[in-house]
Amino acid sequence: MDLLVKETNMQNFSKEIIEKAGRIKLLLTDCDGVLTDGGVYYSKSGEEMKRFSLRDGMGVERLMHMVNVETGIVTGENSEIVRRRAEKLGIKEYHPGSTDKYATLKDILKKRIIYAEEIAYIGDDANDHDIMKHVGLSACPADAFSPTSEIAHLKMSNRGGYGAFREFAEIIIYLKIHGNVHTKESPGWGSHYW
Amino acid sequence: MDLLVKETNMQNFSKEIIEKAGRIKLLLTDCDGVLTDGGVYYSKSGEEMKRFSLRDGMGVERLMHMVNVETGIVTGENSEIVRRRAEKLGIKEYHPGSTDKYATLKDILKKRIIYAEEIAYIGDDANDHDIMKHVGLSACPADAFSPTSEIAHLKMSNRGGYGAFREFAEIIIYLKIHGNVHTKESPGWGSHYW
Amino acid sequence: MDLLVKETNMQNFSKEIIEKAGRIKLLLTDCDGVLTDGGVYYSKSGEEMKRFSLRDGMGVERLMHMVNVETGIVTGENSEIVRRRAEKLGIKEYHPGSTDKYATLKDILKKRIIYAEEIAYIGDDANDHDIMKHVGLSACPADAFSPTSEIAHLKMSNRGGYGAFREFAEIIIYLKIHGNVHTKESPGWGSHYW
Amino acid sequence: MDLLVKETNMQNFSKEIIEKAGRIKLLLTDCDGVLTDGGVYYSKSGEEMKRFSLRDGMGVERLMHMVNVETGIVTGENSEIVRRRAEKLGIKEYHPGSTDKYATLKDILKKRIIYAEEIAYIGDDANDHDIMKHVGLSACPADAFSPTSEIAHLKMSNRGGYGAFREFAEIIIYLKIHGNVHTKESPGWGSHYW
Repeated sequence: MDLLVKETNMQNFSKEIIEKAGRIKLLLTDCDGVLTDGGVYYSKSGEEMKRFSLRDGMGVERLMHMVNVETGIVTGENSEIVRRRAEKLGIKEYHPGSTDKYATLKDILKKRIIYAEEIAYIGDDANDHDIMKHVGLSACPADAFSPTSEIAHLKMSNRGGYGAFREFAEIIIYLKIHGNVHTKESPGWGSHYW
Repeated sequence: MDLLVKETNMQNFSKEIIEKAGRIKLLLTDCDGVLTDGGVYYSKSGEEMKRFSLRDGMGVERLMHMVNVETGIVTGENSEIVRRRAEKLGIKEYHPGSTDKYATLKDILKKRIIYAEEIAYIGDDANDHDIMKHVGLSACPADAFSPTSEIAHLKMSNRGGYGAFREFAEIIIYLKIHGNVHTKESPGWGSHYW
Repeated sequence: MDLLVKETNMQNFSKEIIEKAGRIKLLLTDCDGVLTDGGVYYSKSGEEMKRFSLRDGMGVERLMHMVNVETGIVTGENSEIVRRRAEKLGIKEYHPGSTDKYATLKDILKKRIIYAEEIAYIGDDANDHDIMKHVGLSACPADAFSPTSEIAHLKMSNRGGYGAFREFAEIIIYLKIHGNVHTKESPGWGSHYW
Repeated sequence: MDLLVKETNMQNFSKEIIEKAGRIKLLLTDCDGVLTDGGVYYSKSGEEMKRFSLRDGMGVERLMHMVNVETGIVTGENSEIVRRRAEKLGIKEYHPGSTDKYATLKDILKKRIIYAEEIAYIGDDANDHDIMKHVGLSACPADAFSPTSEIAHLKMSNRGGYGAFREFAEIIIYLKIHGNVHTKESPGWGSHYW
């Protein structure tokens, strides 16, 4: 399968970010404002809708098939809509109604016997700050609040619901594949370890 | 909880705006064009939908929890959709079908025994002009009509339905918390009163 | 009611446009791409939706109340959705399934005993070109095809479904009210006729 | 019917592109991200929706009526929604659930006894790369991934779901009609063949 980050973009990532991405085993994501644009549609009859991106869905698949990274959802809301979307995407780590996302992170670490450095997280709002400070690699959509984007390691160029998650997924895929290659090739990047 | 306005933005607000924000006890908002992008979805079968922002919903919560400011909705429309959204957000001051919003304001002032200076309002269209001229602090979304934005004290950088309400809420939160701090610290800002 | 075009914008309109606007008695509009953004939502179960703007709805009201100009819809589609919207807006000149919009225009002229110069039209696509060439004043949304925008007298700064119709309505309201005033006041504008 | 590409744009197309367009008999398109903006709406009750553009629909009609080019859909998804849309547009080459789009192309070529050079394709993602490399003329929406846009012969200025397909259709219509005209008129363009 083709990589979707341009090779020339490699130079945009610091050695630190490449190393952080190399350790990722699980990508956790907020839902509203990341997998969606934060919108919720209300109807007269009581129905509700949310808009997701099929491009993000393809990101979930590619993460698994290309670099064996699983995806999970950690959200403050508890919505049947999101449960359906998580089910369609085959997401096992689905944590709705998380009022303390950092606590949810700690539960996941315990259950999976995994390190926080092996987790990536993408979020867009104040209730994501705590968990973002504790994971190995963090990102936010282009339209996140500015204090959130200051906490994130990486700020996406795409907005929530319009490719932000996919962009983060493709960067992780790219850095896990090309990061190693480049590390091997350039002596200054610690090639002695490989 | 983290503030979501950058500290360096403090200098963007005049002493007058900081003082106005400090007095706010109730934030009233128009619905269509502010809490939504002004859109209404019609179906073949007679169903209707409107799109709200979950980020705005978090603004309602944060206003209450961080600075004890309540939120109300004053709208010219009378829509079951908006009633449901107001209910979900726990909004008590819900005034649908208001053909004269200034009259509605006066009713609220009487009922609550509160001053107009203690009310903030955000609106985007001609039927908001009158009420905007009579409240303590007024704002409009980035995509309001230009005569509306000339009346407003503050013009948001976000559009209606895409964070305009939340931005206004965060500014009020920020100015009520930091405004006092800054006033105390900088002698030129009337610190003798504190 | 407040005018929503800035007074300083008066200079943007040529004497010819002001005169054309002054004659308008009926504003006809295309639907898809003008009152909507051209989108249609399909569901699994066969439902369809289209998105309208409440700001445009307020334009229909203001045209009638402020300058006694009626609104009509001329559309190539024949959709129950648009019929509902037309009904909600109280639109009497509703012409769905118009495969030849210029022919529809001629029918309206005959029925109403009105001149083409008294009709304004806003459209966005190839099937609007013919009718646009024959009415008194024509406009297109900001996102119309470039050949369509070359035919139109006025190109709106707002996109279809996002205020294009309202903008055209407000310009007509403004020019019908202020155009006369300015004509009266400035001798160079033919004030001798008044 | 009017052409919707400005005549002055002719100079933007190389002789190679004009010749490629001249050979096209069938335009194949991806669905999600091209005919839609990649979004899918989920409801509480299990309903799903996707947003299409009526402007694209008019492109399908104009391709057939003006230059006798048919439209087909080749998509990795298998959605009742897309089936309905294809039916409404009268599309006969509808290929859902295509996990290998290049294989689907080869099936179509065999069935129709047609050359790959006579096929145009527009896609936006990694699973479109293979088929794009094998057709006569390829395009991508303005918001395609950058590696996809590097493979495409033409990058549209409109986004998926917002006119990308229609733009490609109008370019093909324009080049099939004007390309010949210009070739005839300018000796340097091989007018001896006509």
